[in-house]
Amino acid sequence: MKLVPLGDKVVLKQLEAEETTKSGIVLPGQAKEKPQQAEIIAVGPGGVVDGKEVTMQVRVGDKVIYSKYAGTEVKLEDETYIVVKQNDIVAIVED
Amino acid sequence: MKLVPLGDKVVLKQLEAEETTKSGIVLPGQAKEKPQQAEIIAVGPGGVVDGKEVTMQVRVGDKVIYSKYAGTEVKLEDETYIVVKQNDIVAIVED
Amino acid sequence: MKLVPLGDKVVLKQLEAEETTKSGIVLPGQAKEKPQQAEIIAVGPGGVVDGKEVTMQVRVGDKVIYSKYAGTEVKLEDETYIVVKQNDIVAIVED
Amino acid sequence: MKLVPLGDKVVLKQLEAEETTKSGIVLPGQAKEKPQQAEIIAVGPGGVVDGKEVTMQVRVGDKVIYSKYAGTEVKLEDETYIVVKQNDIVAIVED
Amino acid sequence: MKLVPLGDKVVLKQLEAEETTKSGIVLPGQAKEKPQQAEIIAVGPGGVVDGKEVTMQVRVGDKVIYSKYAGTEVKLEDETYIVVKQNDIVAIVED
Amino acid sequence: MKLVPLGDKVVLKQLEAEETTKSGIVLPGQAKEKPQQAEIIAVGPGGVVDGKEVTMQVRVGDKVIYSKYAGTEVKLEDETYIVVKQNDIVAIVED
Amino acid sequence: MKLVPLGDKVVLKQLEAEETTKSGIVLPGQAKEKPQQAEIIAVGPGGVVDGKEVTMQVRVGDKVIYSKYAGTEVKLEDETYIVVKQNDIVAIVED
Repeated sequence: MKLVPLGDKVVLKQLEAEETTKSGIVLPGQAKEKPQQAEIIAVGPGGVVDGKEVTMQVRVGDKVIYSKYAGTEVKLEDETYIVVKQNDIVAIVED
Repeated sequence: MKLVPLGDKVVLKQLEAEETTKSGIVLPGQAKEKPQQAEIIAVGPGGVVDGKEVTMQVRVGDKVIYSKYAGTEVKLEDETYIVVKQNDIVAIVED
Repeated sequence: MKLVPLGDKVVLKQLEAEETTKSGIVLPGQAKEKPQQAEIIAVGPGGVVDGKEVTMQVRVGDKVIYSKYAGTEVKLEDETYIVVKQNDIVAIVED
Repeated sequence: MKLVPLGDKVVLKQLEAEETTKSGIVLPGQAKEKPQQAEIIAVGPGGVVDGKEVTMQVRVGDKVIYSKYAGTEVKLEDETYIVVKQNDIVAIVED
Repeated sequence: MKLVPLGDKVVLKQLEAEETTKSGIVLPGQAKEKPQQAEIIAVGPGGVVDGKEVTMQVRVGDKVIYSKYAGTEVKLEDETYIVVKQNDIVAIVED
Repeated sequence: MKLVPLGDKVVLKQLEAEETTKSGIVLPGQAKEKPQQAEIIAVGPGGVVDGKEVTMQVRVGDKVIYSKYAGTEVKLEDETYIVVKQNDIVAIVED
Repeated sequence: MKLVPLGDKVVLKQLEAEETTKSGIVLPGQAKEKPQQAEIIAVGPGGVVDGKEVTMQVRVGDKVIYSKYAGTEVKLEDETYIVVKQNDIVAIVED
């Protein structure tokens, strides 16, 4: 099963917190703050959304920061995804 | 009796929760979380809605995820439907 | 006396609840849930409403579902009507 | 003294409640529900209002139903008027 | 010192309440209800305001009714003025 | 150090209250009401702001009245400035 | 790792408070008020954002004042950034 987003929507999966700390120590899930980084799983086709032409600027695999108060949490086969509009992605994280 | 949605509206019927868990165990209705998946029962014709041209991108039979806080619940002949705008459908679920 | 709606407005009259249950038993008014179905009594001419061209897609006699939180309740000669914008009608109920 | 409305505004005067009951019995003012009917006293010229072209569709003397939560109440020479935008008039009442 | 309004703004000065009662008795200020009438002291040039062309339709000296909840109260040299957008003026009062 | 406003923004500095009272008596700061007058320190270039062309109509040195609830207070080198959009300036005060 | 903002977004890093006081005395972090100045770390490409063409007017290295209630705080490798839309930057601070 997979999620195919419509319009300007983007499916995200939160990254594990150990990827967001610089030190080499890997902390277990509960002890860490909820990370703001997510990886893009699927990208909508863009096009006219709410009467406005939207060009998608992100790609599957991009690591991104998204606005905390945005999106719809979706549970599918024991995994949790967040579906946001591209406009709620504030930045791409590059290595 | 059937519901014929206007404009960019889409009639949904929530899927039973057993379809959303990967394990083979089928749990009775009360014990399960309310699923976010729904099947599309009817699709409006699109066209100019609120001054904006809308093209319908979903079809009858699509399984979709919709935004929890959207839509009008409708009871018709002992069945419950949800009518949402296409824009409140965040993703199609494909097998 | 009759109501002639302006612009994209539509005059509705709620249907009696017995029309919304499949069984043959007719229940008295108080014992029933408030139905969401209404019949269209009058349809505005459409045209430019709030700067946007609106084409009316519903007709007098259509049975419709409308959004619960929309509309102005109007009492006229001991009858109660609801006046809604066409956009607050979510679906037509067809037999 | 008279009120000359600007733009898409319309000056209304509430009708006495006895005009809204079908029976021949005339009830005194306090015993009656506040009527929703009003008579149009003056109509603005229409034109471009808030960047949108508005054509006036109501005339002085029309009896109308207006949205309860709209408008500015105005007292002038011991009379009370309500000034609403044409868009807040939901229907004309015809005999 | 004088106030020169920008764009679609209009400077008003509230009229004394005795002008709003028909009777010949002049009541002192505290005993009277706050009047809704005001006289126009200065009118902005209009033009493009918030991306929309606005033509000014009121003139200095017009007596007007304005929406109670609108405007910025300004004190200048012991006088109090109200600055409103033209759109918040609901009607001109003519003799 | 100086503030260079972007777009339709304008940097203001509140005027001392003694400039707003007609009498010759100069009162110390605490005893006076917060004045609504401000002097323009810097004016943005205008241009397309939020998709709308804005032409700047105020100049450095203008004394203006601005809307109380607008703007961002900025402290820079022990001075306090207010940065507002031109649209939040309701009037220019001329001598 | 670096943040690459999308559309009209701008990545900021708050400046240390000692840069905002004129005196030569450097105070430790806790004793100082949170500064409103920030330095621009990265600037989005602009283009069509929410249906409107946006031209970026700020550059990496600019010291700016931004609106306090705007933006998304982002933690990345023990550093804290703020991502704002260009429109939330009220002024550039020039030396």
